Amino acid sequence: MEKVVLGIDIGGTNTEIGFVTRDGKVVAKNHTPTLTNTDFKHYFNALVKAIRRTEQSIKGKYDIVGAGIGAPNGNYLNGCIENAVNLGWGDKVPIIDMLKEEFGYPVCVLSNDANAAAVGEMIFGGAKDFGNFIMLTLGTGLGSGIIINGQLVVGTDGNAGELGHLTVVPGGRECGCGHLGCLENYCSATGMVRTALEFMAYNKVPSVLRDIKPADMTSKDIYDAAQAGDSIALDTFQYTGEILGSAINDMITFSSPEAIVLFGGPTKAGDYILTPTVESMKANKRKFMTNDVKVIISELDGAQAAILGAAAMAWNDIE
Amino acid sequence: MEKVVLGIDIGGTNTEIGFVTRDGKVVAKNHTPTLTNTDFKHYFNALVKAIRRTEQSIKGKYDIVGAGIGAPNGNYLNGCIENAVNLGWGDKVPIIDMLKEEFGYPVCVLSNDANAAAVGEMIFGGAKDFGNFIMLTLGTGLGSGIIINGQLVVGTDGNAGELGHLTVVPGGRECGCGHLGCLENYCSATGMVRTALEFMAYNKVPSVLRDIKPADMTSKDIYDAAQAGDSIALDTFQYTGEILGSAINDMITFSSPEAIVLFGGPTKAGDYILTPTVESMKANKRKFMTNDVKVIISELDGAQAAILGAAAMAWNDIE
Repeated sequence: MEKVVLGIDIGGTNTEIGFVTRDGKVVAKNHTPTLTNTDFKHYFNALVKAIRRTEQSIKGKYDIVGAGIGAPNGNYLNGCIENAVNLGWGDKVPIIDMLKEEFGYPVCVLSNDANAAAVGEMIFGGAKDFGNFIMLTLGTGLGSGIIINGQLVVGTDGNAGELGHLTVVPGGRECGCGHLGCLENYCSATGMVRTALEFMAYNKVPSVLRDIKPADMTSKDIYDAAQAGDSIALDTFQYTGEILGSAINDMITFSSPEAIVLFGGPTKAGDYILTPTVESMKANKRKFMTNDVKVIISELDGAQAAILGAAAMAWNDIE
Repeated sequence: MEKVVLGIDIGGTNTEIGFVTRDGKVVAKNHTPTLTNTDFKHYFNALVKAIRRTEQSIKGKYDIVGAGIGAPNGNYLNGCIENAVNLGWGDKVPIIDMLKEEFGYPVCVLSNDANAAAVGEMIFGGAKDFGNFIMLTLGTGLGSGIIINGQLVVGTDGNAGELGHLTVVPGGRECGCGHLGCLENYCSATGMVRTALEFMAYNKVPSVLRDIKPADMTSKDIYDAAQAGDSIALDTFQYTGEILGSAINDMITFSSPEAIVLFGGPTKAGDYILTPTVESMKANKRKFMTNDVKVIISELDGAQAAILGAAAMAWNDIE
C-alpha cells in the first residue's frame, strides 16, 4: 500500500485536513470549522470526527504513517499551541499528545504555519534543491521558516524564525509584539496598506485608494491600482521592496542562504514587488556577499499550500 | 599516546601555533611572523618550518590527529583564504590543501577567526552546555560565529555569520563592506571610538578623551575614562550597549539561541558594557520571546583563545 501522511492546517476560521503522498498528491481532504474561544476539547472532538470520516474514504488503499500540523504559535519542540491569541484556547494546548493518543500514528509533528510552509517548499515545492533557504510568508503579518543544512531551525524554545520582527526602522511603526519598526509592519499585506496611508497623508496626489476605507483596503487593491498606474500604489510597492530587500540582506549576514522564497498575497503582484526588492538587495549588498542569492516566488499551489506544508513536516520527520 | 591537534591562528602580524589536547591543554607552542603582501609560498614555507620544530618537541609523546586554522576570511567550505585584504596574498590561497599535502594529518579544517572562537567556546569554554548560541567578537570589527544544534553555521558560500554587518542604523556610519550603518561601526573597539568622537562633537562637556588624538584612541582609553566618571565615556558605553542589545534581539528573531557569548577588548569593561546591553534587550524584547537569553563573557583565556579556537575546529570535525 502506498504511504500517506495526514496534513492539518489550523487557520483562524477553518481547519483544512488532507492525506498526502510523498509526491505531494492530496488523495483525500476535508475541513471543519476552527472553534475558537471555547474549550479546546470541543474543537478537538470535532477535528477527530472530521479526520475519522476522511480516513474511512481511503481505508484499505493507503497506509497512514504520520501526521503534521501547521498552526499559529505551534511549537515544534513541545507539540503545544502556545498563547495563540486569535484561537483563544489558553496558554498551552498539547495537541500532539492528544493526536497521538487518539490515532496512534508513528510520527506526529507540529509547527507554526510559516515553518510548515518552508518545509513544504523543501519537500514538495521549488526549494527541493536547496539545503539553505529562507521562506517568507507575507500575509496579515510576515512569517518565516529558516532551513539550514536541510534542517528547520527551531531554536532553544521553538521560537526561532520570527524574521517578521527584525527591526527595519528603529523607532518606527507600532508592532503587535510590543516593539517598534518590525519588518512585518512594512512588508506584509497590512504593512503595505499602512504604507499607502502614510503616502496619502504625505502628499495630495490623486489616487483611487483615497476612495477605499482604510479598514477595507487590501494589498490586492494596491495591486489593482498599481496596474492602472496609480502613483501612490506604485510608490507603495517601491517602498515595500526597498525595505524587504534591505532586510533580506540582513538575513544573508546570518545564514548566507541559496535562496529566499516568497509566499502569500502580496507576492501575487510579481514584478511590482520583486523588482524593487532585488534592486534594494543589490544597492545594499555587502562586499563579502559573493553568493548571488535568488529571490523566488513559492511554487506551492496557494489553495493546497497549507495542507502540503503540514504534511511535509511529517514526511520530513519520517525521513 | 594521548591525541593532540595542531591549532594555527593567522593574525595580521603574527601566526601562533600550538598543539592542543581534547581537554584544551596547550602542550607545545610556537609562533612565526605572518609574512604579508608577499608570495604566499614564502610565508607557508616559514610556517611549515615552525610547525616541524614544534612537532619535534612532542615527538613520541603525542599522536597528532588533525589541524585547525583560524584566519581572516578563512572559508570553511573550500579551505581557502579568500581576498584577505590585510594579508595581501591575492584572491584565493588553498592553505588546507597545502597543509594536507605537507603533513598528511587526517583532518585539516579552516575557518575565520570568529567562527573558530565560537567553536572554541563550545569545545573548551563557557558554551559547552549550549547547543544554540552566538559568539560575538568585538575588536577592530565585530565578528560572529553562530552555532545551531551544535553545528557551526557556514551557509552556502562559507560566508554565514557576518553579523557585524547587520544594519542597525539605516543610512548611518560608513562601513568597509560598502553599506551604511552596520553593527560593527557602533559595537566594536573602533566603533566605540567613533561614538566618543560623535559625542564630543555634539556637546562641549569636558572629557579626558579630548586630550587623546583620535588616531590613538582605543576602547581601553574609553574604559579608563569611564572608571574616572567621564561622562562622554559613560555615554559611549551606554550607547554601545543600547545598539548591541537591540541587535542581539534581532539575532534572537533568527535562531532563538540559549546564549550570546561576548569576546574581545571592549568586553573587558564588564558591567559598563553588559548592563546597558541587557537593559536594551529587555526594553526591545518581543512578546513572543519566552526564552531568557543569557549574555555572558567568553571564558577563554585571551592569550590562548585564538590557538584554542583553531584547535577546537579540528576537534569538532573529528567528533
